[in-house]
Amino acid sequence: MVAFAKGHGTGNDFVIIEDADGQAGFEPDQVAALCDRHFGIGGDGLLRVVRSTALVEGAAALAENPAAEWFMDYRNADGSVAEMCGNGVRVFAHYLIRSGLAELGAGETLHIGTRAGVRAVTLADNGYEVDMGTWRIAGGEPLARAAGLGVPRPGLGIDVGNPHVVVALASDAELAGLDLVHSPELAPVPENGANIEFVVPGDPLVQDGVGRVRMRVFERGVGETLSCGTGVVASALAVRHWAGSAAPDTWEVEVPGGTLGARMFPGDDGEHVALSGSAQIVFHGEIELA
Amino acid sequence: MVAFAKGHGTGNDFVIIEDADGQAGFEPDQVAALCDRHFGIGGDGLLRVVRSTALVEGAAALAENPAAEWFMDYRNADGSVAEMCGNGVRVFAHYLIRSGLAELGAGETLHIGTRAGVRAVTLADNGYEVDMGTWRIAGGEPLARAAGLGVPRPGLGIDVGNPHVVVALASDAELAGLDLVHSPELAPVPENGANIEFVVPGDPLVQDGVGRVRMRVFERGVGETLSCGTGVVASALAVRHWAGSAAPDTWEVEVPGGTLGARMFPGDDGEHVALSGSAQIVFHGEIELA
Repeated sequence: MVAFAKGHGTGNDFVIIEDADGQAGFEPDQVAALCDRHFGIGGDGLLRVVRSTALVEGAAALAENPAAEWFMDYRNADGSVAEMCGNGVRVFAHYLIRSGLAELGAGETLHIGTRAGVRAVTLADNGYEVDMGTWRIAGGEPLARAAGLGVPRPGLGIDVGNPHVVVALASDAELAGLDLVHSPELAPVPENGANIEFVVPGDPLVQDGVGRVRMRVFERGVGETLSCGTGVVASALAVRHWAGSAAPDTWEVEVPGGTLGARMFPGDDGEHVALSGSAQIVFHGEIELA
Repeated sequence: MVAFAKGHGTGNDFVIIEDADGQAGFEPDQVAALCDRHFGIGGDGLLRVVRSTALVEGAAALAENPAAEWFMDYRNADGSVAEMCGNGVRVFAHYLIRSGLAELGAGETLHIGTRAGVRAVTLADNGYEVDMGTWRIAGGEPLARAAGLGVPRPGLGIDVGNPHVVVALASDAELAGLDLVHSPELAPVPENGANIEFVVPGDPLVQDGVGRVRMRVFERGVGETLSCGTGVVASALAVRHWAGSAAPDTWEVEVPGGTLGARMFPGDDGEHVALSGSAQIVFHGEIELA
Protein backbone atom coordinates (compact mmCIF):
# COMPACT_ATOMS: atom_id res chain seq x y z
CA MET A 1 0.00 0.00 0.00
CA VAL A 2 1.21 3.49 -0.88
CA ALA A 3 0.14 6.49 1.21
CA PHE A 4 -0.82 9.61 -0.71
CA ALA A 5 -2.48 12.98 -0.33
CA LYS A 6 -4.69 14.82 -2.79
CA GLY A 7 -4.48 18.59 -3.10
CA HIS A 8 -5.33 21.46 -5.43
CA GLY A 9 -4.59 25.10 -6.21
CA THR A 10 -7.66 26.85 -7.65
CA GLY A 11 -8.92 23.51 -8.96
CA ASN A 12 -5.66 22.43 -10.61
CA ASP A 13 -5.36 19.14 -8.72
CA PHE A 14 -2.57 16.76 -7.83
CA VAL A 15 -1.87 13.38 -6.33
CA ILE A 16 0.99 13.87 -3.83
CA ILE A 17 3.24 10.97 -2.88
CA GLU A 18 6.01 11.33 -0.31
CA ASP A 19 9.11 9.42 -1.33
CA ALA A 20 11.85 11.17 0.63
CA ASP A 21 14.61 8.71 -0.25
CA GLY A 22 13.63 8.31 -3.90
CA GLN A 23 12.88 4.59 -3.51
CA ALA A 24 9.65 4.61 -5.52
CA GLY A 25 10.24 4.79 -9.26
CA PHE A 26 6.95 5.51 -10.98
CA GLU A 27 6.61 4.23 -14.52
CA PRO A 28 4.56 6.44 -16.89
CA ASP A 29 1.71 3.91 -16.96
CA GLN A 30 1.59 3.84 -13.15
CA VAL A 31 1.37 7.64 -13.06
CA ALA A 32 -1.39 7.58 -15.68
CA ALA A 33 -3.28 4.94 -13.65
CA LEU A 34 -2.98 6.98 -10.44
CA CYS A 35 -4.19 10.16 -12.20
CA ASP A 36 -7.14 8.48 -13.96
CA ARG A 37 -10.29 10.10 -12.58
CA HIS A 38 -12.51 7.00 -12.86
CA PHE A 39 -10.16 4.04 -12.40
CA GLY A 40 -7.55 5.67 -10.12
CA ILE A 41 -7.26 8.56 -7.65
CA GLY A 42 -7.62 11.28 -10.26
CA GLY A 43 -5.64 14.45 -10.83
CA ASP A 44 -4.09 16.80 -13.37
CA GLY A 45 -0.70 15.44 -12.34
CA LEU A 46 1.48 13.72 -9.75
CA LEU A 47 3.79 15.54 -7.33
CA ARG A 48 6.46 13.19 -5.97
CA VAL A 49 8.11 14.64 -2.85
CA VAL A 50 11.77 13.65 -2.95
CA ARG A 51 14.82 14.82 -1.01
CA SER A 52 17.09 16.59 -3.52
CA THR A 53 20.10 14.48 -2.47
CA ALA A 54 18.27 11.36 -3.67
CA LEU A 55 18.01 12.45 -7.32
CA VAL A 56 20.50 13.50 -9.99
CA GLU A 57 18.12 16.32 -10.96
CA GLY A 58 17.82 17.20 -7.28
CA ALA A 59 21.60 17.45 -6.99
CA ALA A 60 21.57 19.92 -9.90
CA ALA A 61 18.96 21.94 -8.02
CA LEU A 62 21.11 21.83 -4.86
CA ALA A 63 24.13 23.05 -6.83
CA GLU A 64 22.04 25.99 -8.02
CA ASN A 65 20.78 26.72 -4.49
CA PRO A 66 21.89 24.63 -1.47
CA ALA A 67 18.66 25.58 0.34
CA ALA A 68 16.54 23.53 -2.09
CA GLU A 69 16.27 20.50 0.22
CA TRP A 70 13.14 19.15 -1.49
CA PHE A 71 12.66 18.40 -5.17
CA MET A 72 9.28 18.44 -6.91
CA ASP A 73 9.23 15.50 -9.33
CA TYR A 74 6.23 16.60 -11.39
CA ARG A 75 4.49 14.32 -13.89
CA ASN A 76 1.58 15.09 -16.16
CA ALA A 77 -1.59 13.01 -15.88
CA ASP A 78 -0.55 11.01 -18.98
CA GLY A 79 2.65 9.96 -17.20
CA SER A 80 5.03 12.22 -19.11
CA VAL A 81 7.70 14.20 -17.27
CA ALA A 82 7.05 17.94 -16.94
CA GLU A 83 9.38 20.75 -15.98
CA MET A 84 7.28 23.02 -13.82
CA CYS A 85 3.76 23.86 -12.73
CA GLY A 86 2.96 27.12 -10.97
CA ASN A 87 -0.11 25.80 -9.16
CA GLY A 88 1.76 22.57 -8.37
CA VAL A 89 4.61 24.41 -6.61
CA ARG A 90 2.15 26.09 -4.21
CA VAL A 91 0.47 22.76 -3.42
CA PHE A 92 3.91 21.15 -3.02
CA ALA A 93 5.03 23.88 -0.59
CA HIS A 94 1.77 23.60 1.36
CA TYR A 95 2.23 19.84 1.63
CA LEU A 96 5.81 20.21 2.94
CA ILE A 97 4.66 22.69 5.58
CA ARG A 98 1.55 20.76 6.62
CA SER A 99 3.59 17.57 6.92
CA GLY A 100 6.34 19.20 8.98
CA LEU A 101 8.96 18.59 6.26
CA ALA A 102 9.63 22.33 5.94
CA GLU A 103 8.85 25.59 7.72
CA LEU A 104 7.93 28.94 6.25
CA GLY A 105 7.44 32.07 8.36
CA ALA A 106 6.45 35.56 7.27
CA GLY A 107 9.32 37.17 5.35
CA GLU A 108 11.07 33.82 4.86
CA THR A 109 11.65 31.98 1.58
CA LEU A 110 11.23 28.26 0.90
CA HIS A 111 13.33 27.04 -2.04
CA ILE A 112 12.00 24.10 -4.05
CA GLY A 113 13.92 22.23 -6.72
CA THR A 114 12.17 21.67 -10.06
CA ARG A 115 13.37 20.57 -13.50
CA ALA A 116 13.09 24.22 -14.59
CA GLY A 117 15.40 25.34 -11.76
CA VAL A 118 14.92 26.31 -8.13
CA ARG A 119 11.71 28.17 -7.33
CA ALA A 120 11.35 30.61 -4.40
CA VAL A 121 8.08 30.40 -2.43
CA THR A 122 6.91 32.96 0.14
CA LEU A 123 3.73 33.45 2.16
CA ALA A 124 1.18 35.81 0.60
CA ASP A 125 -2.18 37.28 1.69
CA ASN A 126 -3.97 34.87 -0.65
CA GLY A 127 -1.83 31.82 0.18
CA TYR A 128 1.61 31.35 -1.36
CA GLU A 129 3.59 33.31 -3.95
CA VAL A 130 5.99 31.59 -6.38
CA ASP A 131 8.64 33.46 -8.36
CA MET A 132 8.08 32.14 -11.90
CA GLY A 133 11.29 33.74 -13.25
CA THR A 134 11.80 35.96 -16.28
CA TRP A 135 9.47 36.30 -19.25
CA ARG A 136 9.49 37.72 -22.78
CA ILE A 137 7.18 38.75 -25.60
CA ALA A 138 7.57 35.94 -28.11
CA GLY A 139 6.63 37.99 -31.18
CA GLY A 140 4.21 37.11 -33.93
CA GLU A 141 0.53 37.91 -33.78
CA PRO A 142 -1.15 34.59 -34.58
CA LEU A 143 -4.87 34.74 -35.40
CA ALA A 144 -7.02 32.63 -33.05
CA ARG A 145 -10.20 30.91 -34.19
CA ALA A 146 -12.54 29.22 -31.70
CA ALA A 147 -16.09 27.90 -31.80
CA GLY A 148 -18.51 30.56 -30.62
CA LEU A 149 -16.05 33.36 -31.31
CA GLY A 150 -17.28 34.73 -34.67
CA VAL A 151 -14.37 36.38 -36.51
CA PRO A 152 -10.81 35.32 -35.63
CA ARG A 153 -8.87 37.57 -33.22
CA PRO A 154 -5.18 38.44 -33.06
CA GLY A 155 -3.25 37.02 -30.11
CA LEU A 156 -0.04 38.07 -28.37
CA GLY A 157 2.74 35.49 -27.96
CA ILE A 158 4.16 35.44 -24.41
CA ASP A 159 6.89 33.10 -23.20
CA VAL A 160 7.07 32.41 -19.45
CA GLY A 161 9.19 29.26 -19.76
CA ASN A 162 6.46 27.70 -21.89
CA PRO A 163 4.67 29.28 -24.87
CA HIS A 164 1.35 31.14 -24.58
CA VAL A 165 -0.88 33.10 -26.92
CA VAL A 166 -3.17 35.59 -25.17
CA VAL A 167 -6.32 36.72 -27.00
CA ALA A 168 -8.40 39.68 -25.81
CA LEU A 169 -12.19 39.45 -25.99
CA ALA A 170 -14.72 42.28 -25.72
CA SER A 171 -16.99 41.15 -22.90
CA ASP A 172 -17.73 38.57 -20.22
CA ALA A 173 -20.62 37.37 -22.41
CA GLU A 174 -18.21 36.69 -25.26
CA LEU A 175 -15.90 34.81 -22.88
CA ALA A 176 -18.78 32.75 -21.50
CA GLY A 177 -20.00 31.97 -25.03
CA LEU A 178 -16.70 30.39 -26.10
CA ASP A 179 -16.87 26.68 -26.85
CA LEU A 180 -13.52 25.26 -25.70
CA VAL A 181 -14.57 21.62 -25.92
CA HIS A 182 -12.61 21.48 -29.14
CA SER A 183 -9.18 23.07 -29.59
CA PRO A 184 -9.04 26.65 -30.84
CA GLU A 185 -6.84 27.08 -33.92
CA LEU A 186 -3.90 29.42 -34.37
CA ALA A 187 -2.63 30.72 -37.73
CA PRO A 188 0.26 30.54 -38.21
CA VAL A 189 0.59 27.46 -36.00
CA PRO A 190 3.38 28.01 -33.42
CA GLU A 191 6.26 25.57 -33.85
CA ASN A 192 5.82 23.93 -30.42
CA GLY A 193 2.12 24.73 -30.04
CA ALA A 194 0.96 27.07 -27.29
CA ASN A 195 -1.49 27.33 -24.43
CA ILE A 196 -4.20 29.77 -25.50
CA GLU A 197 -5.68 32.23 -23.00
CA PHE A 198 -8.86 34.17 -23.77
CA VAL A 199 -9.04 37.24 -21.55
CA VAL A 200 -11.44 40.06 -20.76
CA PRO A 201 -9.78 43.09 -19.14
CA GLY A 202 -11.66 44.37 -16.08
CA ASP A 203 -13.97 47.40 -16.30
CA PRO A 204 -12.53 49.43 -14.72
CA LEU A 205 -9.20 47.85 -15.59
CA VAL A 206 -7.54 49.01 -12.37
CA GLN A 207 -9.13 49.10 -8.93
CA ASP A 208 -7.23 50.21 -5.80
CA GLY A 209 -3.99 50.00 -7.79
CA VAL A 210 -4.59 46.37 -8.84
CA GLY A 211 -5.19 45.42 -12.48
CA ARG A 212 -7.97 42.94 -13.15
CA VAL A 213 -8.44 40.28 -15.82
CA ARG A 214 -10.86 37.40 -16.34
CA MET A 215 -9.50 34.37 -18.22
CA ARG A 216 -10.31 30.97 -19.72
CA VAL A 217 -7.54 28.73 -20.95
CA PHE A 218 -7.09 25.89 -23.41
CA GLU A 219 -3.96 23.96 -22.43
CA ARG A 220 -1.85 22.43 -25.16
CA GLY A 221 -2.56 18.69 -25.34
CA VAL A 222 -4.99 18.80 -22.40
CA GLY A 223 -8.06 20.91 -23.16
CA GLU A 224 -9.85 23.54 -21.12
CA THR A 225 -8.77 23.50 -17.48
CA LEU A 226 -10.00 25.24 -14.32
CA SER A 227 -6.70 26.99 -13.82
CA CYS A 228 -3.25 27.28 -15.41
CA GLY A 229 -0.53 29.07 -13.43
CA THR A 230 1.69 30.08 -16.33
CA GLY A 231 -1.44 31.10 -18.29
CA VAL A 232 -2.44 33.41 -15.45
CA VAL A 233 0.86 35.29 -15.43
CA ALA A 234 0.97 35.35 -19.26
CA SER A 235 -2.54 36.90 -19.28
CA ALA A 236 -1.57 39.60 -16.78
CA LEU A 237 1.61 40.35 -18.75
CA ALA A 238 -0.31 40.64 -22.05
CA VAL A 239 -3.00 42.93 -20.64
CA ARG A 240 -0.37 45.11 -18.93
CA HIS A 241 1.45 45.31 -22.29
CA TRP A 242 -1.72 46.43 -24.08
CA ALA A 243 -2.61 48.91 -21.31
CA GLY A 244 0.66 50.84 -21.70
CA SER A 245 3.08 52.44 -19.30
CA ALA A 246 0.52 53.57 -16.72
CA ALA A 247 -0.58 49.98 -16.00
CA PRO A 248 0.21 48.54 -12.56
CA ASP A 249 2.56 45.64 -11.75
CA THR A 250 0.06 43.85 -9.50
CA TRP A 251 -2.82 41.90 -11.03
CA GLU A 252 -5.75 39.79 -10.00
CA VAL A 253 -6.74 37.11 -12.52
CA GLU A 254 -10.07 35.33 -12.27
CA VAL A 255 -10.09 31.79 -13.68
CA PRO A 256 -12.90 29.19 -13.64
CA GLY A 257 -11.34 27.58 -10.53
CA GLY A 258 -10.84 30.75 -8.46
CA THR A 259 -8.75 33.92 -8.30
CA LEU A 260 -4.96 34.17 -8.56
CA GLY A 261 -2.47 37.01 -8.25
CA ALA A 262 0.32 38.00 -10.65
CA ARG A 263 3.10 40.44 -9.73
CA MET A 264 5.97 41.80 -11.81
CA PHE A 265 9.21 42.88 -10.13
CA PRO A 266 12.81 43.58 -11.19
CA GLY A 267 15.39 40.78 -10.89
CA ASP A 268 19.13 40.50 -11.60
CA ASP A 269 18.43 38.85 -14.96
CA GLY A 270 15.48 41.00 -16.07
CA GLU A 271 11.91 41.47 -14.91
CA HIS A 272 10.41 38.51 -13.05
CA VAL A 273 6.78 37.57 -12.67
CA ALA A 274 5.31 35.85 -9.60
CA LEU A 275 2.12 33.83 -9.19
CA SER A 276 0.15 33.78 -5.94
CA GLY A 277 -2.90 31.92 -4.72
CA SER A 278 -4.30 29.35 -2.38
CA ALA A 279 -3.26 25.72 -1.93
CA GLN A 280 -5.35 23.03 -0.25
CA ILE A 281 -4.86 19.46 0.89
CA VAL A 282 -8.26 17.78 0.41
CA PHE A 283 -7.78 14.24 1.66
CA HIS A 284 -5.29 11.52 2.56
CA GLY A 285 -5.49 7.91 1.47
CA GLU A 286 -3.82 4.59 0.75
CA ILE A 287 -3.79 2.75 -2.56
CA GLU A 288 -2.42 -0.55 -3.86
CA LEU A 289 -0.14 0.15 -6.82
CA ALA A 290 -0.89 -1.93 -9.92
CA MET B 1 -12.57 13.31 9.68
CA VAL B 2 -14.78 10.95 7.69
CA ALA B 3 -13.43 7.62 6.43
CA PHE B 4 -14.38 6.66 2.90
CA ALA B 5 -13.56 4.23 0.11
CA LYS B 6 -13.53 4.81 -3.62
CA GLY B 7 -14.68 2.12 -6.02
CA HIS B 8 -15.91 1.57 -9.55
CA GLY B 9 -17.72 -0.86 -11.81
CA THR B 10 -16.44 -0.63 -15.41
CA GLY B 11 -15.41 2.97 -14.79
CA ASN B 12 -18.71 4.10 -13.25
CA ASP B 13 -17.20 5.36 -9.98
CA PHE B 14 -18.45 6.00 -6.48
CA VAL B 15 -17.44 7.49 -3.16
CA ILE B 16 -18.48 4.94 -0.50
CA ILE B 17 -19.15 6.07 3.08
CA GLU B 18 -20.04 3.60 5.82
CA ASP B 19 -22.68 5.01 8.13
CA ALA B 20 -24.18 1.86 9.66
CA ASP B 21 -26.36 3.67 12.21
CA GLY B 22 -27.50 6.43 9.85
CA GLN B 23 -25.87 9.17 11.95
CA ALA B 24 -24.39 11.12 9.05
CA GLY B 25 -26.96 13.13 7.14
CA PHE B 26 -25.40 14.39 3.93
CA GLU B 27 -26.80 17.61 2.53
CA PRO B 28 -26.93 17.85 -1.29
CA ASP B 29 -24.13 20.44 -1.34
CA GLN B 30 -21.91 18.16 0.79
CA VAL B 31 -22.51 15.27 -1.63
CA ALA B 32 -21.72 17.53 -4.58
CA ALA B 33 -18.51 18.70 -2.86
CA LEU B 34 -17.42 15.10 -2.15
CA CYS B 35 -18.10 14.05 -5.76
CA ASP B 36 -16.34 17.05 -7.34
CA ARG B 37 -13.38 15.64 -9.30
CA HIS B 38 -11.07 18.64 -8.77
CA PHE B 39 -12.06 20.09 -5.39
CA GLY B 40 -13.28 16.89 -3.68
CA ILE B 41 -12.78 13.12 -3.92
CA GLY B 42 -14.52 12.76 -7.27
CA GLY B 43 -17.12 10.27 -8.44
CA ASP B 44 -20.28 9.72 -10.46
CA GLY B 45 -22.14 9.39 -7.18
CA LEU B 46 -22.11 8.61 -3.46
CA LEU B 47 -23.02 5.23 -1.95
CA ARG B 48 -23.92 5.57 1.74
CA VAL B 49 -23.83 2.20 3.50
CA VAL B 50 -26.64 2.22 6.08
CA ARG B 51 -28.27 -0.54 8.13
CA SER B 52 -31.88 -0.82 6.88
CA THR B 53 -33.24 -0.54 10.43
CA ALA B 54 -31.76 2.98 10.67
CA LEU B 55 -33.81 4.45 7.80
CA VAL B 56 -37.52 4.77 7.04
CA GLU B 57 -36.74 3.74 3.42
CA GLY B 58 -34.67 0.88 4.80
CA ALA B 59 -37.63 -0.31 6.88
CA ALA B 60 -39.72 -0.40 3.71
CA ALA B 61 -37.02 -2.52 2.08
CA LEU B 62 -36.98 -4.85 5.11
CA ALA B 63 -40.76 -5.20 4.92
CA GLU B 64 -40.36 -6.25 1.28
CA ASN B 65 -37.58 -8.70 2.13
CA PRO B 66 -36.34 -9.23 5.72
CA ALA B 67 -32.95 -10.35 4.38
CA ALA B 68 -32.15 -6.82 3.11
CA GLU B 69 -29.99 -5.90 6.11
CA TRP B 70 -28.10 -3.15 4.26
CA PHE B 71 -29.60 -0.20 2.39
CA MET B 72 -27.85 1.59 -0.48
CA ASP B 73 -28.49 5.31 -0.05
CA TYR B 74 -27.46 6.39 -3.55
CA ARG B 75 -26.94 10.05 -4.50
CA ASN B 76 -26.01 11.50 -7.86
CA ALA B 77 -22.85 13.60 -8.15
CA ASP B 78 -24.96 16.78 -8.10
CA GLY B 79 -26.34 15.81 -4.67
CA SER B 80 -29.79 14.75 -5.85
CA VAL B 81 -31.37 11.53 -4.56
CA ALA B 82 -31.47 8.64 -7.04
CA GLU B 83 -33.42 5.41 -6.94
CA MET B 84 -31.02 2.82 -8.29
CA CYS B 85 -27.79 2.28 -10.14
CA GLY B 86 -26.88 -1.11 -11.60
CA ASN B 87 -23.12 -0.56 -11.46
CA GLY B 88 -23.50 0.99 -7.99
CA VAL B 89 -25.22 -2.11 -6.56
CA ARG B 90 -22.28 -4.32 -7.60
CA VAL B 91 -19.78 -1.92 -6.04
CA PHE B 92 -21.98 -1.70 -2.92
CA ALA B 93 -22.12 -5.51 -2.62
CA HIS B 94 -18.35 -5.79 -3.15
CA TYR B 95 -17.76 -3.21 -0.43
CA LEU B 96 -20.01 -5.08 2.05
CA ILE B 97 -18.16 -8.35 1.39
CA ARG B 98 -14.66 -6.83 1.44
CA SER B 99 -15.46 -5.05 4.70
CA GLY B 100 -16.89 -8.16 6.36
CA LEU B 101 -20.35 -6.59 6.66
CA ALA B 102 -21.88 -9.37 4.54
CA GLU B 103 -20.98 -12.76 3.11
CA LEU B 104 -21.79 -14.20 -0.29
CA GLY B 105 -20.90 -17.76 -1.31
CA ALA B 106 -21.47 -19.53 -4.61
CA GLY B 107 -25.19 -20.18 -5.10
CA GLU B 108 -26.14 -17.72 -2.35
CA THR B 109 -28.02 -14.44 -2.75
CA LEU B 110 -27.25 -11.11 -1.08
CA HIS B 111 -30.29 -8.82 -0.81
CA ILE B 112 -29.69 -5.07 -0.87
CA GLY B 113 -32.30 -2.41 -0.15
CA THR B 114 -32.61 0.45 -2.64
CA ARG B 115 -35.24 3.13 -3.23
CA ALA B 116 -36.40 1.12 -6.27
CA GLY B 117 -36.95 -1.98 -4.09
CA VAL B 118 -34.77 -4.86 -2.91
CA ARG B 119 -32.14 -6.06 -5.37
CA ALA B 120 -30.77 -9.62 -5.43
CA VAL B 121 -27.01 -9.98 -5.99
CA THR B 122 -25.21 -13.24 -6.77
CA LEU B 123 -21.64 -14.18 -7.68
CA ALA B 124 -20.95 -14.43 -11.42
CA ASP B 125 -17.96 -15.49 -13.54
CA ASN B 126 -17.30 -11.85 -14.38
CA GLY B 127 -17.89 -10.49 -10.85
CA TYR B 128 -21.42 -9.95 -9.54
CA GLU B 129 -24.85 -10.26 -11.12
CA VAL B 130 -27.75 -7.99 -10.11
CA ASP B 131 -31.39 -8.74 -10.92
CA MET B 132 -32.61 -5.45 -12.41
CA GLY B 133 -36.28 -6.53 -12.38
CA THR B 134 -38.85 -6.44 -15.16
CA TRP B 135 -38.66 -4.36 -18.34
CA ARG B 136 -40.92 -3.27 -21.18
CA ILE B 137 -40.83 -1.81 -24.68
CA ALA B 138 -41.94 1.77 -24.14
CA GLY B 139 -43.31 2.34 -27.64
CA GLY B 140 -42.69 5.24 -29.97
CA GLU B 141 -39.82 5.35 -32.40
CA PRO B 142 -38.18 8.71 -31.75
CA LEU B 143 -35.66 9.89 -34.35
CA ALA B 144 -32.17 10.50 -32.92
CA ARG B 145 -29.85 13.20 -34.24
CA ALA B 146 -26.24 13.45 -33.08
CA ALA B 147 -23.15 15.29 -34.28
CA GLY B 148 -21.14 13.06 -36.60
CA LEU B 149 -24.11 10.82 -37.37
CA GLY B 150 -25.27 12.13 -40.76
CA VAL B 151 -28.97 11.41 -41.23
CA PRO B 152 -31.13 10.88 -38.12
CA ARG B 153 -31.84 7.27 -37.10
CA PRO B 154 -34.93 5.71 -35.50
CA GLY B 155 -34.56 4.56 -31.90
CA LEU B 156 -36.41 1.98 -29.80
CA GLY B 157 -37.85 3.09 -26.43
CA ILE B 158 -37.04 0.62 -23.63
CA ASP B 159 -38.07 1.07 -20.00
CA VAL B 160 -35.99 -0.76 -17.37
CA GLY B 161 -37.18 1.35 -14.43
CA ASN B 162 -35.81 4.42 -16.17
CA PRO B 163 -36.36 5.45 -19.81
CA HIS B 164 -33.93 4.60 -22.61
CA VAL B 165 -33.85 5.04 -26.38
CA VAL B 166 -31.57 2.57 -28.19
CA VAL B 167 -30.29 3.53 -31.65
CA ALA B 168 -28.61 0.99 -33.95
CA LEU B 169 -25.61 2.11 -36.01
CA ALA B 170 -24.04 0.35 -38.97
CA SER B 171 -20.40 -0.05 -37.93
CA ASP B 172 -17.77 0.43 -35.25
CA ALA B 173 -16.38 3.31 -37.33
CA GLU B 174 -19.75 5.06 -37.20
CA LEU B 175 -19.90 4.50 -33.42
CA ALA B 176 -16.36 5.84 -32.96
CA GLY B 177 -17.15 8.88 -35.14
CA LEU B 178 -20.06 10.02 -32.95
CA ASP B 179 -19.52 13.32 -31.18
CA LEU B 180 -21.28 12.96 -27.82
CA VAL B 181 -19.77 16.08 -26.28
CA HIS B 182 -23.10 17.75 -26.92
CA SER B 183 -26.44 16.07 -26.27
CA PRO B 184 -28.04 14.11 -29.11
CA GLU B 185 -31.59 15.21 -29.89
CA LEU B 186 -34.73 13.08 -29.97
CA ALA B 187 -37.88 13.89 -31.97
CA PRO B 188 -40.43 13.69 -30.53
CA VAL B 189 -38.79 14.60 -27.20
CA PRO B 190 -39.76 11.97 -24.55
CA GLU B 191 -41.77 13.47 -21.68
CA ASN B 192 -39.16 12.69 -19.00
CA GLY B 193 -36.17 12.64 -21.32
CA ALA B 194 -34.22 9.43 -21.86
CA ASN B 195 -30.74 8.00 -21.76
CA ILE B 196 -29.67 7.40 -25.36
CA GLU B 197 -27.64 4.31 -26.28
CA PHE B 198 -25.92 4.01 -29.66
CA VAL B 199 -25.22 0.36 -30.41
CA VAL B 200 -23.47 -1.73 -33.02
CA PRO B 201 -24.58 -5.38 -33.07
CA GLY B 202 -21.65 -7.84 -33.16
CA ASP B 203 -20.56 -9.48 -36.42
CA PRO B 204 -21.30 -12.33 -35.99
CA LEU B 205 -24.12 -11.30 -33.67
CA VAL B 206 -23.94 -14.52 -31.65
CA GLN B 207 -20.78 -16.38 -30.65
CA ASP B 208 -20.85 -19.56 -28.53
CA GLY B 209 -24.49 -18.86 -27.74
CA VAL B 210 -23.80 -15.34 -26.42
CA GLY B 211 -25.12 -12.25 -28.19
CA ARG B 212 -22.70 -9.37 -28.58
CA VAL B 213 -23.21 -5.58 -28.71
CA ARG B 214 -20.92 -2.58 -28.58
CA MET B 215 -22.39 0.58 -27.02
CA ARG B 216 -21.82 4.24 -26.21
CA VAL B 217 -24.25 6.10 -23.98
CA PHE B 218 -25.34 9.67 -23.39
CA GLU B 219 -26.90 9.85 -19.91
CA ARG B 220 -29.77 12.25 -19.34
CA GLY B 221 -28.50 15.33 -17.52
CA VAL B 222 -24.94 13.97 -17.28
CA GLY B 223 -23.36 13.51 -20.70
CA GLU B 224 -21.36 10.65 -22.16
CA THR B 225 -20.20 8.20 -19.48
CA LEU B 226 -17.86 5.22 -19.46
CA SER B 227 -20.63 2.86 -18.45
CA CYS B 228 -24.36 2.87 -17.62
CA GLY B 229 -25.83 -0.31 -16.12
CA THR B 230 -29.45 0.25 -17.14
CA GLY B 231 -28.23 1.36 -20.60
CA VAL B 232 -26.35 -1.93 -20.98
CA VAL B 233 -29.42 -4.08 -20.31
CA ALA B 234 -31.62 -1.79 -22.43
CA SER B 235 -29.15 -2.19 -25.33
CA ALA B 236 -29.13 -5.98 -25.06
CA LEU B 237 -32.95 -6.02 -24.87
CA ALA B 238 -33.28 -3.80 -27.97
CA VAL B 239 -30.82 -5.82 -30.07
CA ARG B 240 -32.48 -9.09 -29.00
CA HIS B 241 -35.83 -7.56 -30.02
CA TRP B 242 -34.49 -6.63 -33.47
CA ALA B 243 -32.80 -10.00 -33.92
CA GLY B 244 -36.07 -11.93 -33.52
CA SER B 245 -37.04 -15.15 -31.81
CA ALA B 246 -33.80 -17.05 -32.49
CA ALA B 247 -31.74 -14.53 -30.48
CA PRO B 248 -30.18 -15.73 -27.22
CA ASP B 249 -31.00 -14.54 -23.67
CA THR B 250 -27.37 -14.04 -22.69
CA TRP B 251 -25.47 -10.99 -23.93
CA GLU B 252 -22.07 -9.40 -23.66
CA VAL B 253 -22.08 -5.60 -23.97
CA GLU B 254 -18.87 -3.69 -24.55
CA VAL B 255 -18.87 -0.13 -23.17
CA PRO B 256 -16.01 2.41 -23.11
CA GLY B 257 -15.20 1.38 -19.50
CA GLY B 258 -15.17 -2.39 -20.02
CA THR B 259 -17.45 -5.35 -20.73
CA LEU B 260 -20.70 -6.19 -18.95
CA GLY B 261 -23.15 -9.09 -19.16
CA ALA B 262 -26.93 -8.96 -19.57
CA ARG B 263 -29.19 -11.99 -19.05
CA MET B 264 -32.96 -12.35 -19.47
CA PHE B 265 -34.88 -14.92 -17.42
CA PRO B 266 -38.51 -15.58 -16.46
CA GLY B 267 -39.81 -14.20 -13.14
CA ASP B 268 -43.15 -14.37 -11.30
CA ASP B 269 -44.09 -10.90 -12.55
CA GLY B 270 -42.82 -11.22 -16.14
CA GLU B 271 -39.38 -11.48 -17.74
CA HIS B 272 -36.50 -10.07 -15.69
CA VAL B 273 -33.16 -8.79 -16.91
CA ALA B 274 -29.91 -9.06 -14.91
CA LEU B 275 -26.68 -7.09 -15.20
CA SER B 276 -23.30 -8.64 -14.43
CA GLY B 277 -19.76 -7.32 -14.27
CA SER B 278 -16.77 -6.50 -12.14
CA ALA B 279 -16.58 -4.26 -9.08
CA GLN B 280 -13.38 -2.80 -7.64
CA ILE B 281 -12.39 -0.92 -4.50
CA VAL B 282 -9.55 1.39 -5.62
CA PHE B 283 -8.47 3.20 -2.46
CA HIS B 284 -9.39 4.15 1.10
CA GLY B 285 -9.05 7.61 2.61
CA GLU B 286 -10.06 10.20 5.16
CA ILE B 287 -11.51 13.63 4.45
CA GLU B 288 -12.61 16.62 6.50
CA LEU B 289 -16.24 17.43 5.65
CA ALA B 290 -16.87 21.08 4.78
